[in-house]
Amino acid sequence: MKEGRLYFASDYMEGAHPNIIDRLCETNYIHTGGYGLDEITDSAIRRIREACGCPEAEVKLLVGGTQTNAIVIRSLLRSYQGVIAADSGHIAIHEAGAIELGGHKVICLPNKSGKISAAQVEECIRAYEQDDNREHIVMPGMVYISQPTEYGTLYSLAELIALSRVCRSHDIPLYMDGARLAYALASEENDIDLPDYAKLCDVFYIGGTKCGALFGEAVVLPDPARIPHFFSIIKQNGGLLAKGRILGIQFDELFKDELYLRIGKKAVRYAVRITEALREKGYPVFMDSPTNQIFIIVEDDKLEHLREKVEYSYIEKYDDTHTVIRFCTSWATRKEDVDDLIGLFEG
Amino acid sequence: MKEGRLYFASDYMEGAHPNIIDRLCETNYIHTGGYGLDEITDSAIRRIREACGCPEAEVKLLVGGTQTNAIVIRSLLRSYQGVIAADSGHIAIHEAGAIELGGHKVICLPNKSGKISAAQVEECIRAYEQDDNREHIVMPGMVYISQPTEYGTLYSLAELIALSRVCRSHDIPLYMDGARLAYALASEENDIDLPDYAKLCDVFYIGGTKCGALFGEAVVLPDPARIPHFFSIIKQNGGLLAKGRILGIQFDELFKDELYLRIGKKAVRYAVRITEALREKGYPVFMDSPTNQIFIIVEDDKLEHLREKVEYSYIEKYDDTHTVIRFCTSWATRKEDVDDLIGLFEG
Amino acid sequence: MKEGRLYFASDYMEGAHPNIIDRLCETNYIHTGGYGLDEITDSAIRRIREACGCPEAEVKLLVGGTQTNAIVIRSLLRSYQGVIAADSGHIAIHEAGAIELGGHKVICLPNKSGKISAAQVEECIRAYEQDDNREHIVMPGMVYISQPTEYGTLYSLAELIALSRVCRSHDIPLYMDGARLAYALASEENDIDLPDYAKLCDVFYIGGTKCGALFGEAVVLPDPARIPHFFSIIKQNGGLLAKGRILGIQFDELFKDELYLRIGKKAVRYAVRITEALREKGYPVFMDSPTNQIFIIVEDDKLEHLREKVEYSYIEKYDDTHTVIRFCTSWATRKEDVDDLIGLFEG
Amino acid sequence: MKEGRLYFASDYMEGAHPNIIDRLCETNYIHTGGYGLDEITDSAIRRIREACGCPEAEVKLLVGGTQTNAIVIRSLLRSYQGVIAADSGHIAIHEAGAIELGGHKVICLPNKSGKISAAQVEECIRAYEQDDNREHIVMPGMVYISQPTEYGTLYSLAELIALSRVCRSHDIPLYMDGARLAYALASEENDIDLPDYAKLCDVFYIGGTKCGALFGEAVVLPDPARIPHFFSIIKQNGGLLAKGRILGIQFDELFKDELYLRIGKKAVRYAVRITEALREKGYPVFMDSPTNQIFIIVEDDKLEHLREKVEYSYIEKYDDTHTVIRFCTSWATRKEDVDDLIGLFEG
Repeated sequence: MKEGRLYFASDYMEGAHPNIIDRLCETNYIHTGGYGLDEITDSAIRRIREACGCPEAEVKLLVGGTQTNAIVIRSLLRSYQGVIAADSGHIAIHEAGAIELGGHKVICLPNKSGKISAAQVEECIRAYEQDDNREHIVMPGMVYISQPTEYGTLYSLAELIALSRVCRSHDIPLYMDGARLAYALASEENDIDLPDYAKLCDVFYIGGTKCGALFGEAVVLPDPARIPHFFSIIKQNGGLLAKGRILGIQFDELFKDELYLRIGKKAVRYAVRITEALREKGYPVFMDSPTNQIFIIVEDDKLEHLREKVEYSYIEKYDDTHTVIRFCTSWATRKEDVDDLIGLFEG
Repeated sequence: MKEGRLYFASDYMEGAHPNIIDRLCETNYIHTGGYGLDEITDSAIRRIREACGCPEAEVKLLVGGTQTNAIVIRSLLRSYQGVIAADSGHIAIHEAGAIELGGHKVICLPNKSGKISAAQVEECIRAYEQDDNREHIVMPGMVYISQPTEYGTLYSLAELIALSRVCRSHDIPLYMDGARLAYALASEENDIDLPDYAKLCDVFYIGGTKCGALFGEAVVLPDPARIPHFFSIIKQNGGLLAKGRILGIQFDELFKDELYLRIGKKAVRYAVRITEALREKGYPVFMDSPTNQIFIIVEDDKLEHLREKVEYSYIEKYDDTHTVIRFCTSWATRKEDVDDLIGLFEG
Repeated sequence: MKEGRLYFASDYMEGAHPNIIDRLCETNYIHTGGYGLDEITDSAIRRIREACGCPEAEVKLLVGGTQTNAIVIRSLLRSYQGVIAADSGHIAIHEAGAIELGGHKVICLPNKSGKISAAQVEECIRAYEQDDNREHIVMPGMVYISQPTEYGTLYSLAELIALSRVCRSHDIPLYMDGARLAYALASEENDIDLPDYAKLCDVFYIGGTKCGALFGEAVVLPDPARIPHFFSIIKQNGGLLAKGRILGIQFDELFKDELYLRIGKKAVRYAVRITEALREKGYPVFMDSPTNQIFIIVEDDKLEHLREKVEYSYIEKYDDTHTVIRFCTSWATRKEDVDDLIGLFEG
Repeated sequence: MKEGRLYFASDYMEGAHPNIIDRLCETNYIHTGGYGLDEITDSAIRRIREACGCPEAEVKLLVGGTQTNAIVIRSLLRSYQGVIAADSGHIAIHEAGAIELGGHKVICLPNKSGKISAAQVEECIRAYEQDDNREHIVMPGMVYISQPTEYGTLYSLAELIALSRVCRSHDIPLYMDGARLAYALASEENDIDLPDYAKLCDVFYIGGTKCGALFGEAVVLPDPARIPHFFSIIKQNGGLLAKGRILGIQFDELFKDELYLRIGKKAVRYAVRITEALREKGYPVFMDSPTNQIFIIVEDDKLEHLREKVEYSYIEKYDDTHTVIRFCTSWATRKEDVDDLIGLFEG
């Protein structure tokens, strides 16, 4: 970390929202039960259930996103089934084969702005069902989506309803990866609330790591009988934290006084501001992302200059002379940094 | 947590040593790279290498003990191999089948005070090698020990040298689970230092969760080429923390100014005090444990009274009228609580 | 194979019963569907269903015993469950870790003459259920027995009823490995018929490889819904034969005119004759085995002489001067060989 | 099977070449060791080694193709690696997820006439190596090809040399699935002999099931140290046949007096004849296949008529009014059936 340098590479480059740090300090000497069997975790779970409008839901707090995806997916699938996902999905690319390690194929569908549609899912399942050789083929056994997607885009409520309907008509679960859910909930374009997810998804997780926590992802199972012996499964997969309350503390804070939403709102506001300013200055946006990620097309000539001043993520080559890069905002982004970032770009 | 109640159930019932909490606060707004690729983690690794006297070692910081055991063991074994362990070993009993989930048998040898001997290991490997049907049998592919053991007992340097020799003569790795290693290092009976482990074990981990950290275990591979692509393996197994620096912070603190050793010393001093006091009062010790766990035999009549005043761990029935229970001390144990605990037992 | 040498090492040292060979010849040029979807396999399945008295049963013909055990067990267990077995069970020792490769622990109970009792199983499940840490422990999820056992002994009907009752009271399946089932059915001591197995077991297999076939094991699931998508599971595990009719042919013959039973009867009759003759001559029987395996204790001095004349299986050292060896009879055993074998032993 | 009906659906619809059946009959009463440790299997292995020009090769006889692919691939890959294959490859589509069950991703490249090129493989590996996030991505760890491909097409020697060169330059094994290898060796277009495969591939298998055997695939490892403990791995995966000699008998016959080649030649000759006749009659060939599979485009109107007379394989819809179907020839195809099949198509 250098004085004067700007940091927009991702949303997990700092510690945690100060409320979480304060609570860690306050509770440090309290004795509690281990493995998430403590009052603080109970309180966090209550808050999450309430926010999701499903007081009966099973809620489990896990440590990280890949871990959560791997555990949930191998819990829901039978050995002969695979999981349908966008070819840009995190599980399809950036989890080092965690899903396959668990024994399952990721059945990739071509993404459109990071999303897959109900029609694509329907077609994929139909093709399987109508194939005479289907017993020699991996059976589509669940659907995985991310909200926001890996490109920062959003499913609309109508799209989610359609996906949910297809899944239920074929009796397979719909699972949503909400690693950056705070930014979806906070987006102006968003028309889906937590209770909608609880109604339309069979399992989803509310991301903590990228939304202001030190780490942590809250898995919500609206039907608490969906994954029997989930505790043992988490343990067996190395996902159980001895001092589970550390997760409880974080989610209890995130869901107190709508902190989760407030974190999202601030980051999205800054992201919108950056996007608009760059657009005005003539920098084309690669993907119209209404959340906390900004995908922008930059001339290669300007990259070196940028690299000296700001940390960003390289995404891909756009053409022979341009590159797509990404900026992320987060709970830790400061107004002056946003201004400085915008200032780096000439009109 | 109730006023006046005593808490000795385990060593992971509070937060973290205050130095760790302070450092978390101090560093909260610093930007760093993710996934353990940051300066704080670098510093922690340097300190651990130095403490172990092996500047070339690969050191990886993982989140929890079961996770660490599962990942290390599946990385070292080939599919047709199993891991030799004491039948009281953590991997044999209390990890919900994590080793088998990874595809491997735990080959159990009868423990003696929680330990297995070089002679037992030699005999086990010999039996395999001399069996005409050995190609139909799981091959012993590594040895797992815990230091201290699950009963709080210690391997001596001579015992560890003997185990290491057997393993090397058969060209299989020796792996040590040091979930509570601070308490081994701090014990009066201990004659093994960190550099000895680095010389005699092929892989071992230095436990953080039970030794003053919020969570975290530091895997040390004295030969850095022992597990190629270890980073990807950790990622694939859901063990990679996005904000890896949180682990770095904790181990950097634990290995600054010998904090790890000091935490161990205090806990062991209190444990010895409790053991001696109870012994004096006529309570027989179940297992002669020189570390931070105290296994004591109590008349069943007295259990209810105890349960009201103190949290302890139930271990097993001793006979029809007695029960073995366990007290643990830790960095968080206070002198007055030790006195109060001793006071609960009548002379 | 040498002129004048005797072969009693095992029951899979020759080809197949001549009826099977004849049928292979006869049907060689017939065109049929693949993967067991053919009329011959249909006929075999009908015969097996009829013999088992359950016309609705799902019957699948697999290639070998380890394959069958591995596939059935991983199909029935959830990831956090293990399979209870005798410590002498084939899956516990001689399958090179196939069950663990599938992700599951073999929970071993001490055998008594190769058997485990309902009381042991009950105790094992109770211990799990009453353990406060059970969520950290592998859950007993099914029971595996062999009939006859690896020592050639037999469960009685009463014993099987008791085992079945325990399993059903805990809602876990009872699975029987019938690799040598023909010899159980044919034994004078036997009081269990195929329909009893179909009533009392949840899954079992009727062994072909060791009972007169070239290879093949017939899995019977009295409740056809017990393992959904079993065909795909078999395919996925590499157990599906393209020319599935080869299995159909073999079982169609084995279950025509009670051939299976007749093969068993002949082999058992010879085994009994050998046992009685050797007993008369003063050779102590190691295990009272009423099927086609003869376990006998021989002075080490005599082993070399025997080895020159006859192939047998080494089982284990009995004491410093004696060894336990095994003879097996089969469909291929000839009367003159039995006489010659007996003649090798002095009175 | 109906009188007058034609059977061209696949090459595994009958028993085995009569030489194999004869040998099964002749050897039926011979006693041999189990698990492939017998003189007949030894002889088969010697013949295969000789045919491949590598007297040191490890040769293992397995039962089926999916089994062989699954076992070889999981033996060669490390957990964090995947296998590169054509998107039309058998392992990518028709093995019910057997590769993923073993823990590995199939990294699909777009096929061209069923084939992938050295350039595609090079590009795939480069992309991995140059990706900054490669440690979060599945590493390409081997290359899988089929010869002939699933579309009956052939790699040329030049193409195979190029693939081998790329693999060796990146130190990853090249594995060839030769399920129908007899038909490749017999094709007029073929310029690769068995010794070439042994030089250019790191592992390959010579298919029996689809080339005249009842079942069986012979895995050849030119470097016998390539897969240590391969016997145990095969056992563990349920691929070990107790009466292993049944495999030995089949391959001993197939490699006696070039039977394997002769079987291929006859089938290919008939296939060429069918192709040429249909082409002359104006039926467009879908894929130019020089082996024993014929892919032909037929008007949907004519399908019903065909279906009554001949069994074929449905491949895919070509357009709104046409369908691609497949005929296969084999050792069992008779000249008169070929004539009759041709006669079904009007000029």
